[in-house]
Amino acid sequence: MTQNIYDDDTFFAGYGQLDRSRLGLDGAPEWPTLRAMLPDLAGKRVLDLGCGFGWFCRWAAEQGAERVLGIDVSANMLARAQSMAKGEAVVYLRADLEAVTLPRGAFDLVYSSLALHYIVDLEGLLAKVRRALKPGGVLVCSVEHPTMTAPTEPEWVKRPDGRSVWPLDRYLAEGERVTDWLAPGVIKQHRTIETYVALLLGAGFRLTDLREWGPSLEQSAERPDFALGRERPFFMLLGGRLED
Amino acid sequence: MTQNIYDDDTFFAGYGQLDRSRLGLDGAPEWPTLRAMLPDLAGKRVLDLGCGFGWFCRWAAEQGAERVLGIDVSANMLARAQSMAKGEAVVYLRADLEAVTLPRGAFDLVYSSLALHYIVDLEGLLAKVRRALKPGGVLVCSVEHPTMTAPTEPEWVKRPDGRSVWPLDRYLAEGERVTDWLAPGVIKQHRTIETYVALLLGAGFRLTDLREWGPSLEQSAERPDFALGRERPFFMLLGGRLED
Repeated sequence: MTQNIYDDDTFFAGYGQLDRSRLGLDGAPEWPTLRAMLPDLAGKRVLDLGCGFGWFCRWAAEQGAERVLGIDVSANMLARAQSMAKGEAVVYLRADLEAVTLPRGAFDLVYSSLALHYIVDLEGLLAKVRRALKPGGVLVCSVEHPTMTAPTEPEWVKRPDGRSVWPLDRYLAEGERVTDWLAPGVIKQHRTIETYVALLLGAGFRLTDLREWGPSLEQSAERPDFALGRERPFFMLLGGRLED
Repeated sequence: MTQNIYDDDTFFAGYGQLDRSRLGLDGAPEWPTLRAMLPDLAGKRVLDLGCGFGWFCRWAAEQGAERVLGIDVSANMLARAQSMAKGEAVVYLRADLEAVTLPRGAFDLVYSSLALHYIVDLEGLLAKVRRALKPGGVLVCSVEHPTMTAPTEPEWVKRPDGRSVWPLDRYLAEGERVTDWLAPGVIKQHRTIETYVALLLGAGFRLTDLREWGPSLEQSAERPDFALGRERPFFMLLGGRLED
């Protein structure tokens, strides 16, 4: 079972202070890239796996999605999502993504932002996603970039000449990684890019997008705290489509 | 124009000592993985871009390929390839891959081992590859893994606890990288995985394989000089297929 760190009070308090929590999609620097990977949502049925505060669900409803289902394991996050609801066509469901049962052939788009790197049985979840999509359905998701999750010590190292380098190791040693981020003992699953792609293809998707997101030069100039993301990408964004 | 480093005498002398030069395909530890990505070659027409000593060309002929064309820019390498020819259905052609003209709709498979990271205009070359393939044709290629080409200083760094880490930086800064490997001033083109995949999809291929090759635990045990490849992969292997 996946750890439910978002219901840890310390983690949740810290998480709530992040730009992406306070400002929503516009507080997530990778959002414009992810958004460009999405199909037109007007009249579509949308599932958001790991919907958190529901920012994407509400946005999808604003884009004219016919129905939006947001699933998250965190009671804390869903309570906040519900409190921000404005009568849109959004339904929230609390469930563990490892165990959830999804309706068959029900969605045009499955979306997931920064949730899948917590999932232990990703192959099982993607098989469920495949069945939950209509023919021609689309999956768009983001995960922490595998070079970010791999290292034994995921902290920038200052070189004698002042450069910061990312100490990559254990890249091919897939499995659990425990880090202290907002709270001690946060558990993520490290997978290689090879594995993410193989799981997607193996689930029957055609790969349509693979992006390694780091800040643009412009974003780096505006936000020096992002700049190191040009040395090593923060996120990997994947897009896949089922055959019609 | 791509640097022709294989006709540098110092480089060529060193390159000729590598296992992959002396022993051929069996001296290349990634070969079993690459081989598993190949279609059946019996009766097929095959093009090898950057064929070097012709090990793959001769192997393809042994597999029953109807015709094999090997192209390389290096006179040194082609002379050696010719000297090892045994009357197989292999033709060698000396040409710069940046400038070569390829016949249209002529091949079932285009193969390229560790050559494409030297190419400046990879988009242009892939467009030519696409046109050179028959409908349903296949591209299988390997390149140095982008985490390997990216760094300012591509040398393992020993940490205080004895671990070796790979000092990743400049990952998103694509372009020329100059390293001293076998000879000073070897020029390669660093590209992200995103870019390799986008170029392949953009050229009309469906992605069928993306492998990040490092030694297996078994290979690491046999060859301690390979073991660091488990910390950071050596190669990326890509497979693509055109629509029928």
